[in-house]
Amino acid sequence: MSQAQVSDEEIFTGHEGGKLSVAATRPITEARDLSIAYTPGVAKVSRAIAEDNSRAARYTWADRLVAVVSDGTAVLGLGDIGASASLPVMEGKSVLFKTFADLNSIPLVLDTTDVDEIVETLVRLRPSFGAVNLEDISAPRCFELEDKLKEALDCPVMHDDQHGTAIVVLAALRGANMVLDKAIGDERVVISGAGAAGVACAKILKAAGVGDVTVLDSKGIIHAGRDGLNPVKARLAETTNTSGLTGGLAEALKGADVFVGLSGSTVEESLLEGMADNSIFFALSNPDPELHPEIAAKYASVVATGRSDFPNQINNVLAFPGVFRGALDSGARSITENMKLAAADAIAAVAADKLAVDHIVPSPLDPAVAVEVATAVAKAAASDGVTA
Amino acid sequence: MSQAQVSDEEIFTGHEGGKLSVAATRPITEARDLSIAYTPGVAKVSRAIAEDNSRAARYTWADRLVAVVSDGTAVLGLGDIGASASLPVMEGKSVLFKTFADLNSIPLVLDTTDVDEIVETLVRLRPSFGAVNLEDISAPRCFELEDKLKEALDCPVMHDDQHGTAIVVLAALRGANMVLDKAIGDERVVISGAGAAGVACAKILKAAGVGDVTVLDSKGIIHAGRDGLNPVKARLAETTNTSGLTGGLAEALKGADVFVGLSGSTVEESLLEGMADNSIFFALSNPDPELHPEIAAKYASVVATGRSDFPNQINNVLAFPGVFRGALDSGARSITENMKLAAADAIAAVAADKLAVDHIVPSPLDPAVAVEVATAVAKAAASDGVTA
Repeated sequence: MSQAQVSDEEIFTGHEGGKLSVAATRPITEARDLSIAYTPGVAKVSRAIAEDNSRAARYTWADRLVAVVSDGTAVLGLGDIGASASLPVMEGKSVLFKTFADLNSIPLVLDTTDVDEIVETLVRLRPSFGAVNLEDISAPRCFELEDKLKEALDCPVMHDDQHGTAIVVLAALRGANMVLDKAIGDERVVISGAGAAGVACAKILKAAGVGDVTVLDSKGIIHAGRDGLNPVKARLAETTNTSGLTGGLAEALKGADVFVGLSGSTVEESLLEGMADNSIFFALSNPDPELHPEIAAKYASVVATGRSDFPNQINNVLAFPGVFRGALDSGARSITENMKLAAADAIAAVAADKLAVDHIVPSPLDPAVAVEVATAVAKAAASDGVTA
Repeated sequence: MSQAQVSDEEIFTGHEGGKLSVAATRPITEARDLSIAYTPGVAKVSRAIAEDNSRAARYTWADRLVAVVSDGTAVLGLGDIGASASLPVMEGKSVLFKTFADLNSIPLVLDTTDVDEIVETLVRLRPSFGAVNLEDISAPRCFELEDKLKEALDCPVMHDDQHGTAIVVLAALRGANMVLDKAIGDERVVISGAGAAGVACAKILKAAGVGDVTVLDSKGIIHAGRDGLNPVKARLAETTNTSGLTGGLAEALKGADVFVGLSGSTVEESLLEGMADNSIFFALSNPDPELHPEIAAKYASVVATGRSDFPNQINNVLAFPGVFRGALDSGARSITENMKLAAADAIAAVAADKLAVDHIVPSPLDPAVAVEVATAVAKAAASDGVTA
């Protein structure tokens, strides 16, 4: 344990009154300040923007403002607890955007779970922000929502539970492979969970060149012969599990190189015995990992969790601040697959200096991470030609 | 002139990058801070709110957050210049909310001018904020929008161009009457302009006991016999102009005690000759008053404008920060007529200490104003029984 237990009192005190504050960038202390920031001065700025809308990017905060959007349907591991209850998480994201990427953001939590209504609401609010971070939205709705929103908005949109997680998992796998001297193309990866994170991880790992990926949901291995797959899982069945595995976790883990746990279910210790030599075990469910990391370490060569009180914390905060910062710095109108891959590589590169079995990813508090990620993402945006 | 001219360069530099910044109320410097503000700690707060939604008031920022909402259809005197161009004004309002009432607020500018769509959008966003300040929305749509929004939302809603203006005009009239020892019940007030501000001013002045109010639009005096009045003006015709005046400004000003200019049109100097003795002239159009205040002062005993470079600046900033602060402090679910009247009286009371012909209202920078207004508004809310 790297830190003493945090008490409930500390937690609730830390949230009292909310975690965000809006401040003026320039103080109002005399009549002159009022004449500049408000009437009559502001009229000149408004008129200038009315004449040329592109000036809003320079003279308002919106162009670099991230809307942190949730409908509260999949909050952390707590499920569909509603918009109000999701707000502390969204405020937390805004705190992290500011802390690590110096980006302003506002939480927008919605009292509707209808995908089209959410899209419509954000389209109407479009002049108010410069990017959208979707958060804690249930699968499979989250896939449809992200697709429709990317179509409807001419700005960066990213569902963090999907792509933030996928980016840090790929970064961690690159770190683990460097430590163990393994090649990504030879690996077979098992992902437990076909929700937002599982689907996005499968996608980015395939894009990064993983040899084979097998995904399981609550009914077992997803394969082309299974009945009743929803469209998202049917597509997964087409693009993963090239060896046509069937069955459950036991069958999947036999000979597997990597386990990525994203489902909240538990894994029997005995199943790890069948994994390949030098196996990698990511038990990412929070707050309870799929298997205690100390037990997992008896079998796997590298173990990681999502928790801050064990080594190798795989946390989205390594990705999203730098991804949005890079996207906004470059004037990107969307977030491409290459930008996500570049983010993962940048995170892995920061860890590379001090690489070890218990240091496959940087600390979530390392200020270098967001800077490196932003630079890499901006570069990828430019080379993909998605900048304005 | 009380200050040197502000240059365009100063104005544009003062808006560069926008005027707002979002900050964390508590810094994230070590792993422990992350465990409290983000995972795993935040899950306890979210779960607590899911169990009892009223806890959101204590553990999120939303309950005391003002949404500053515009569709950009009536921005300052510039008209329908669109949402993006209205944003500098909304950011300015947020700066003033923070500066004078220590309230957080976020600008939400909308790419729709449909009243029902605006209502629907804010209903969906309801868990994100605690009050709505409507701003720069064209008449007569603004009346319908405010009515529908008050019906749809269980939180304070106020269209500042209507009620903020009405409150400060009443406060200024109280100040002028004290200086001139005039009684409000004996006065006949002429309001030039039947837009958002004019309609609300007529209403509050009647409620405060003004003897008679005559309102003019671009076609002249509004009276019951006029054809083609829209519903808002038809109601005005019923409740004002008890002496049944017809004609234009010349007819209206003959023998009038008070002029309130809210239309942007000009007033001929000669018309002031016909006003009653000890007349009061509020030339509130910005940036160009209906008549230069130094000329108006040749005829009227008290002159006021909306400008910061002349004495007696009648500016909404005297009202809205304290009104919302008082409403939120008291847990008010709406903003009642009594709360607005109380706000006007509180502003007048602050000015009363140093009352003079050139000091009928406090300075917009006087920090005592919002404090006194908030206290009076909270008290009125409690006595009206609209607090939660």
